Formats: sequence, structure tokens, C-alpha cells
Amino acid sequence: MNNNQVSLDTLVSLAKRRGFVFQASEIYGGLAGFWDYGPYGVELANNIKASWWHFFVRQQRDIVGIDGAIIQNPKLWKASGHVEGFNDPLVEDLKTHKRYRADHLAGVDTSDLEQLTDLLKNKKSPDGNELGPVRLFNMMFKTHVGVLEGEDNVVYLRPETAGAIFSNYKNVLDTARVKIPFGIAQIGKAFRNEISPRDFIFRVRELEQMEIEYFTNPADAQKHLERLKKLYWQWLIELGLKTERMEWRQLPPESRAHYSADNWDVEYKYFDGKPKELGGIANRTNYDLTRHAQLSGKDLSYFDETTRERFIPYVIEPTIGVDRVLLAILESAYHEEEVNGETRVVLKIAPEIAPVRVAILPLSKKSELSALSGEVYKKLVQETHWNIEYDETQSIGKRYRRQDEIGTPYCVTIDFESLQDHAVTIRHRDTMEQNRVQIKNLKSELSM
Amino acid sequence: MNNNQVSLDTLVSLAKRRGFVFQASEIYGGLAGFWDYGPYGVELANNIKASWWHFFVRQQRDIVGIDGAIIQNPKLWKASGHVEGFNDPLVEDLKTHKRYRADHLAGVDTSDLEQLTDLLKNKKSPDGNELGPVRLFNMMFKTHVGVLEGEDNVVYLRPETAGAIFSNYKNVLDTARVKIPFGIAQIGKAFRNEISPRDFIFRVRELEQMEIEYFTNPADAQKHLERLKKLYWQWLIELGLKTERMEWRQLPPESRAHYSADNWDVEYKYFDGKPKELGGIANRTNYDLTRHAQLSGKDLSYFDETTRERFIPYVIEPTIGVDRVLLAILESAYHEEEVNGETRVVLKIAPEIAPVRVAILPLSKKSELSALSGEVYKKLVQETHWNIEYDETQSIGKRYRRQDEIGTPYCVTIDFESLQDHAVTIRHRDTMEQNRVQIKNLKSELSM
Repeated sequence: MNNNQVSLDTLVSLAKRRGFVFQASEIYGGLAGFWDYGPYGVELANNIKASWWHFFVRQQRDIVGIDGAIIQNPKLWKASGHVEGFNDPLVEDLKTHKRYRADHLAGVDTSDLEQLTDLLKNKKSPDGNELGPVRLFNMMFKTHVGVLEGEDNVVYLRPETAGAIFSNYKNVLDTARVKIPFGIAQIGKAFRNEISPRDFIFRVRELEQMEIEYFTNPADAQKHLERLKKLYWQWLIELGLKTERMEWRQLPPESRAHYSADNWDVEYKYFDGKPKELGGIANRTNYDLTRHAQLSGKDLSYFDETTRERFIPYVIEPTIGVDRVLLAILESAYHEEEVNGETRVVLKIAPEIAPVRVAILPLSKKSELSALSGEVYKKLVQETHWNIEYDETQSIGKRYRRQDEIGTPYCVTIDFESLQDHAVTIRHRDTMEQNRVQIKNLKSELSM
Repeated sequence: MNNNQVSLDTLVSLAKRRGFVFQASEIYGGLAGFWDYGPYGVELANNIKASWWHFFVRQQRDIVGIDGAIIQNPKLWKASGHVEGFNDPLVEDLKTHKRYRADHLAGVDTSDLEQLTDLLKNKKSPDGNELGPVRLFNMMFKTHVGVLEGEDNVVYLRPETAGAIFSNYKNVLDTARVKIPFGIAQIGKAFRNEISPRDFIFRVRELEQMEIEYFTNPADAQKHLERLKKLYWQWLIELGLKTERMEWRQLPPESRAHYSADNWDVEYKYFDGKPKELGGIANRTNYDLTRHAQLSGKDLSYFDETTRERFIPYVIEPTIGVDRVLLAILESAYHEEEVNGETRVVLKIAPEIAPVRVAILPLSKKSELSALSGEVYKKLVQETHWNIEYDETQSIGKRYRRQDEIGTPYCVTIDFESLQDHAVTIRHRDTMEQNRVQIKNLKSELSM
């Protein structure tokens, strides 16, 4: 069966059935736009994050990490423009009081109130009723800090992680051994009160982002954008995403923020074959640091000792969502194959990020086998720090099939002969081939 | 200088000066109870989390992980008792309108309203003014989901991670290969609207927890509590925390929740020498699953095929805060030593969790040295995935001192001789001893 045909329903069902993603608070009827990662989902997500951190922070001498709080001083979101401008256009069915994204009903990609009002003048709601006026709805979640409720102590759940990077720009410059050009990277949760969350974990209200703000001399900004864009592509390929389903798309000037000098989305063709935003990279000019300098009253300019220039650094911002990457990995990895007249479902996830790297499968529950298998498990976990699963119930065929469905690249079978020859059988997920190796060589065999 | 004398001020100042912890939104005047981790803080925190996950999830065959959403269906927090009962007693200065924890002003450890009212009857506020009545203040942060604001769509930021573990108990049982007894582990942010956040990152409004809910046959609950308590102690010792500053304290029945059968705090003597809660372990009986079964209408009982019994599992809950562990590590690691008439500040952090595992320090910025040093850096990062810092400016003495202060166990100096003999010098943080090793043996030398 061709990979192009995997539907969203198939992925949602596999994700639930095999412990990748559950509806948040499912036993209470769920909550729209919120999802929980199950035992295999959390391992996959953690591996994606660790791979990103290794690639962009540890391997790059000029990028360091931070981890900022989700709740920040609200002035930060005034400076960033989110308090004023992080809005979706909203329209209400005057009978059912259901609310809709005005741009979706109008079928256009704009947030221009006048244009939307015009387009929706003679339109009805999906239920056939009159629509109210188009209004703007701020997507930041609001809460109150401290014991008084009131406008004075309103704070927001961050709508993106970038904010804490900008507010820490000077702290990082003063404490880490960095000079322009350098980047600050961050992984963390962000929250958006979407009017209509949809498409499983694609458009959610609680998401996780991996963002970099790369600070540079204005003259070099585009050069670094091109360089980071290439690095990003390389990382996505290493994750095992299918190149034929991915592409960079340059945003036309009218789709960019007014301060943006250049902006690219990396798009992925998910379940419906239509390209959807996986991540992006933008040349944000000096907009962010200029705004934060204005509103905080701090000098955020930089004196470059080599060129003897003083400037407000430009910022290149590569950003991508953990949840969207995870969904793209499931999509790229999903295969159905005909084996002996039966359908085998297999996730061909790259071994480095597979939720379970190795499954240890004793052929029976007999105590001699359990003892040896337990030792093999323990030693391998300690030496590799991999996530390894131990499973001794059900027939070996069923266990292989289950490991295929969660994407485990290697199954290690331990049988009664193992007690004699100190060897075990490795079964390879993709080829289903098996080979016998000495237990003492297991780690190196599985590391290749 | 004796380690007992490190003050909170010293740690706060080091943490800020060396890029471990910054005040959140510092350029906007901060926000009480919120902190950001800087470049070294995020590496240390990530290493603590990875160490916990490796120890409690990967090394334990009977514990699996999840990662639940921060925002859940509010019914979950009704079932857990947080909507009704997650309160602090609050009292107001009638003149300044400052609010205080009533139990703190009264100097007792209780949330009994009557008792507190009685104790505060003739007391004045710290500013010498009349106090209002003692009231209860719910510490959960509230927000609204969707486009309508109103009681109907109030949701909460989770006050603890445990909630999503209980709501996923059945999903995990159905999808992961687990049987009672087994545990579900989770790491994530939690939020508490503390009336008076204080003591740096010890009592904060946004924290990160590492929690396990271990589900067991009621008859075995205390046995598992004892076992997990020992495991916890072992993990804390591996992290390098000083045993003489730590102890388990059993909570007396009157300090426990009504449903709790046993409860221990692991306490650590921070800066002021007084034992403070680092984490805890509790036998929560079947309270949680019983409540969730009642409020969700789902059957959460378990049929044990070995004993042929049906029961609602008991839960043993070991829980600990990332921020508090990090602070305890800084406290345990901080040393001041007299070296050649000068004071050397050194963080003796265990190599496995040190923010920077190795610093690569070329003796000069000359291009021949940079080229070789860059190669050594790149190869070592790729082979080990460690966080490695490259620093080629300032005198070597200053660079050693800086690495001492951030706790880097190994500095690798590359000099002009290295170009000839393909060897480098390793300088050991704790002993300040140096030894020369071949570049090809560097990884194995540093892994010991």
C-alpha cells in the first residue's frame, strides 16, 4: 500500500491504540485542542527534542540554550506586539451563538476587518443563520498573578517562546562566552486560544515550540538566514522526513509582518496531501530588540569590536513545532505491507528517535530465560541509556507485530539455546531479517 | 572555607553572574515567583531531568512515562480535590491592603481557619496595622478556554502533574505492556499562585515537577513505598547531594491528608541550615482512582489474574521538584578554596550532570590552533552528545577560573605542541591536576 494514502483517521487511531497520543482528560470527555502524550509518544517527542538540541545547540559553537518561564511580565507582550495584535477575526452565528474564524468562512487568508466584513455581508453561517459583525479576538490566554483579580495583575500564557529569548538577550551576552553573531535556542510550551482547534495535534491550543533567535550584524542577516535554512533542512532529513513531501515556500510581502525582510515556511504534505506549515524561518530585522529597548528603557545596541560599528542586531528566527514534527514523522514512517497474505503495519522511524530502540523478548516466561533476559536488558540500558522495552507475554509473532506498529527497529529474542551459546537473535524491523549475535557484541551490533 | 557557610545571596549572585538563573522579564522589572534558566541553568536542569528519566523510567522495567497537557478538563481538578481544597489561608492588612499567609503570621503550620482566626485576633500586620478576617485563597491559576469568558469555560493551569497520570491510568494499562504493580512517570511544569513566593527558586509560582504514580495491590503498597523510598535516596546520592544535609522525615498523621496512609518528606538543609522540603513520597491509598472513577463514571478497578482479586489500586507517589533539586545541587557543589593566596570558587558538580562536561581551550587564537581545536570539539560532540564549550579568549588562568565557577569537570587545553605530538592537556577541576593525553584517546579518558 502506498504511503500517500495514509489518512488522518488511520494515524489518530494508531496513535491512540498504540499509546502515542491520547485526548487530554479523555475520561472527562476531553478538552478541545489539548492532547496528552502516552508512553510511546513521550519517548518520541523527547527524542525529537534531544535531537534538535544536539543538532542546533550542542553541535553549533555559536548557539546556546535557555529555558524561560511560561508566564512573564505582561510588558514583554506589549513590546512584542501580542497584546495589540495577536488576534484572529471572529464572527458569530446570531442564532446558535457559535463562533467561527471569519477568514475561514470567507475563504480568504487575511485579517483585514473591512475586507472580511465586506466578503461576509451576504453570507450565512454553516447552520444557515445570520452572522454578526466581524470582530478581533486576542488568542492569548489570560490569568491573574497574586491574590487580587484586576487589570493590574493580568498576565498571559506565552503565545510563543521567543519572548524570553529577547528579554534575556543582554543577560546571555553578559554571561555566556558569545559575540555577535550568535543564537539563543529554547524549547518549551506555548498557548494559543484557537477559535477552532483541529486536525489532531496539528492545530492545538497547547503546543511545544523549538525556537532560535539568531542575532547578527544587519549586513549579514540574509547570509545567516540562508545558512540556517540549509541546516534546518538537513536536520529534517536526518529525522527521516520524506523530502518529496516537504518544501520551502517564500512568503510574499503581503503575507509578511510589516517589519519582516524575508520569511519562509517549510511545508509538509500531511494526510490530505495539501502542504501545511511545519515550521518557518524569518528575517525579523531589528524590530524585536528595538521594541524591547523602547519599552524597557534598556540599551540593547551592540558594539562590534571588529568592524567598530554600533548597531541594533538583526534577528533570524527559525521556529518549528514539536507536535507538528512528530505528526510528520508518523506520516513519513507509516507503512502497510503485505506479508504472507496479511497486512503488516510498520512505522519506519529512524532508530535514533524511535520511541523504543530495542525490545527484549524472551521466548518463554520460564525463570532461566527471564533471568538471562533481565540481565541483558539491564546491561544494555545502563550502557546505552536507550529506551528498551522488556516483553515476555503473548506469541512471538504478536510481539513482533506490536513492535512494528510502534516503530521499534530491533527486536532481540532470547531462547533456550541462548543459555548454551550466549547468543541472541536480532530481528530487524524494516527487512524482517534475523541474525544471531553473541550477547557480548549486542551493543555494538545495535549501534550500527 | 566550609561549605556550611554558603548563603542564599552567594548562590543567587553566582547563578545570575554565571548564567544559571535570571529573574524572568528582568528588563521589565521581573515578576515575583518566576525565573528563567540561562545557558548553564538549562543544561543543568536538562541533565537532572534526563538523569531522573534514565533512573526511574528507562532502568525500571515496571515504570513508563507520559507527558500530559498543562491545561486539562476542569472536572479533573474537581475530582482531585484541588477546586475545593487547594487553598492557602490569607489575611489582609486593612490599611496597606497587603496580603499575607495567615499561617506564617501566626507562626503555625495549619490551615484551620478557626485556629488561625483565634491566633491572629490580637495581632497586627508587619506594618503595625489592623488585620482583616482569615480567608481561604485558591492557589490554582484560572483562565478561559474558547472565545466566551464565563464560568462555563474556566480552566486551570495544573497545580501538579499527577492529574494527567490518573486520567490516563486506563489508557496506559490498555496500550503499554504493563500489569499491576506498575508506575507512570511524568516531568513537567506546574503552577501555584503563591501568596508570598520567596527564597529564590525554592518557592516559586511556576515550577517543574518529576512525579511517579505507582499503582499497586493494596496489600503491597507499603512494601513498594519502602522500595521506592530507597531508590529515591540512591538517585539523590548519585546526583552528588550531600548525605549529611539530607534526611527523610515521616509526617505525623495530623499533617497528612485524611486519605493518606503514610507520607515522608525528603528534606534538605539549604542555605539557612534549616531542613526544607526537597520532595516526598506518599501512600495515597485508593483515594485518587476512587475519586476519578466516581466523577468520570468509568470503572477504574483492576482484576489481578494471579491473585484472582478485583480492587481499586493503591497509589504510591514519589514527587520532587526540578528547581529544588537544582538549588540543592548548587548548594552541595559550592566550594571556596584558597589557592596561592587567592580564593577559588568551584562548583563540584558530578560530571554526568555538569552543565558543561568539557571545555575546549586553545592556548591562542592563531588559526593553526583554531583549526585543530575546532576539529577536536566537533568530533567529541558528535561522539558523545555532551555539552562542550569552546572558548578561545582571555588568559588561560581566567578561563580555568570561569569553568570552575560553572562546574566544568574537565578543561582541555590545546597548545602549539599539540600540532606536533597530537596530544592535549586535561586539567581536572577538583584536583587542578593536569595530564597529557593523545587526542585519539580523549573520549575514553574523559568518560572514566
